[in-house]
Amino acid sequence: MVKQCKPILWYLFVTNGLSMLLKSQVKYIQSLGHKKFRDTEQVFVAEGPKLTGELLQAKNIRPLQVYALQEWVDKNLAAVERKDVFELHIVREQELSRISFLTKPNQVLGLFKKPSFPPIQLEHRISLALDGIQDPGNLGTLVRIADWFAIEQIICSEETADLFNPKVVQSSMGSLARVQVLHKDLKRFFSEHAKPPVYGMLLQGTALQSMGKIEEGIILVGNESKGISEELLPFVKHRVTIPRLGHAESLNAAVATGIVLSHIIST
Amino acid sequence: MVKQCKPILWYLFVTNGLSMLLKSQVKYIQSLGHKKFRDTEQVFVAEGPKLTGELLQAKNIRPLQVYALQEWVDKNLAAVERKDVFELHIVREQELSRISFLTKPNQVLGLFKKPSFPPIQLEHRISLALDGIQDPGNLGTLVRIADWFAIEQIICSEETADLFNPKVVQSSMGSLARVQVLHKDLKRFFSEHAKPPVYGMLLQGTALQSMGKIEEGIILVGNESKGISEELLPFVKHRVTIPRLGHAESLNAAVATGIVLSHIIST
Repeated sequence: MVKQCKPILWYLFVTNGLSMLLKSQVKYIQSLGHKKFRDTEQVFVAEGPKLTGELLQAKNIRPLQVYALQEWVDKNLAAVERKDVFELHIVREQELSRISFLTKPNQVLGLFKKPSFPPIQLEHRISLALDGIQDPGNLGTLVRIADWFAIEQIICSEETADLFNPKVVQSSMGSLARVQVLHKDLKRFFSEHAKPPVYGMLLQGTALQSMGKIEEGIILVGNESKGISEELLPFVKHRVTIPRLGHAESLNAAVATGIVLSHIIST
Repeated sequence: MVKQCKPILWYLFVTNGLSMLLKSQVKYIQSLGHKKFRDTEQVFVAEGPKLTGELLQAKNIRPLQVYALQEWVDKNLAAVERKDVFELHIVREQELSRISFLTKPNQVLGLFKKPSFPPIQLEHRISLALDGIQDPGNLGTLVRIADWFAIEQIICSEETADLFNPKVVQSSMGSLARVQVLHKDLKRFFSEHAKPPVYGMLLQGTALQSMGKIEEGIILVGNESKGISEELLPFVKHRVTIPRLGHAESLNAAVATGIVLSHIIST
């Protein structure tokens, strides 16, 4: 173990006890809206008292900077100090809206180092694989569903949205600290090693209700409109279908995943 | 049966065979972004070839005006003529983007009369009741879920989003022609008549998997963050819970509804 130096907690009181944001700070935070910059920095943005509060508790996520209104700081200073936040900036609402990615900025914005996880482990457990989920809200919802059902790993195709896109972060909530999300070339991933069986969610297959519970497997979820891509179908060992009783053409990918998991995982 | 006069199909070719939109037309369509105006006119907007195509097939929805690019008209003129559309406007892309509610206008925009349905019928079937679903995307997804599971009626509290909000229309897709969505004061609605039993989706209740199938009931879905409101709890006869195996604080309301329906409806 390397001994970590305790970083200094900065309170930047410039005018009336409030921090004025420098142009360079604003630009840095705005750049975190871009995946390329997030990848280089290994940093992401999370906002709002609930999410920021949860991430300040998470063991595997290091908070770097917090920009917050005085009212938030009054209630949360202890949590900030406990987590060794490098910088705390007390800002006015108008400053917060300069850096916020939300339509309605919500008290606090934090910059966090991406979470660290142990190497993935697919045996004796259920994991998810996402083949091109492109809507950020859908990905965030899927991460929460995984967390609800105690699934710890999601392997995404390279076309799947980025977990640290501010919209995904907001919709996955604290679950992003507990569920490991990796991006891989799925074809290569499936062909490289012997893996637990792949269960593909398809419109034609075994009715979900007639499947038993499973203890091990990878549940493969297709793209919102195109489903599972041709090149991945050969890896699907079991085709699973949610029987359609009415006329809707499709179910939302996250909804379908929630339904499948609720049937195949032993509770 | 009153004999209906066949309306005249207008092709407005002004310049180069294309229709120039008048300011008043643009303003009328934009006003349909407001609930009040939609309610007065009983008209809503739907966009894109897939959704417009589906609504042009629906028996209980009358199309009024279609604004489309030439390429869409070339493929769909027969459908437009068959449905007695009052006005067909062939427009350029830049005209379409003046009236579209989408970030990326998609070939065609239609104005439709709201669908008509027979009086609601709650006995011997399963219906949904939504207590304050505020996100338009969630409402649209719930309408599709209902349609998938052959649920024909959704009773919404007055705080629930409007079905004909352009975002809800786009996310519910053709399902809005098949599922009847009413807005009511839910407290009064539940107290007025004897009704099938109400099943409330709550964090504490009977585990979903230990419930049997049901043939009749109203599934009550709570607001995204506050759940079922205090004043409606007395009407809940059965409390249903999706067991949480991991740590997510909550499931998305639409996902939870899909899970519950997949377990309690006989397939």
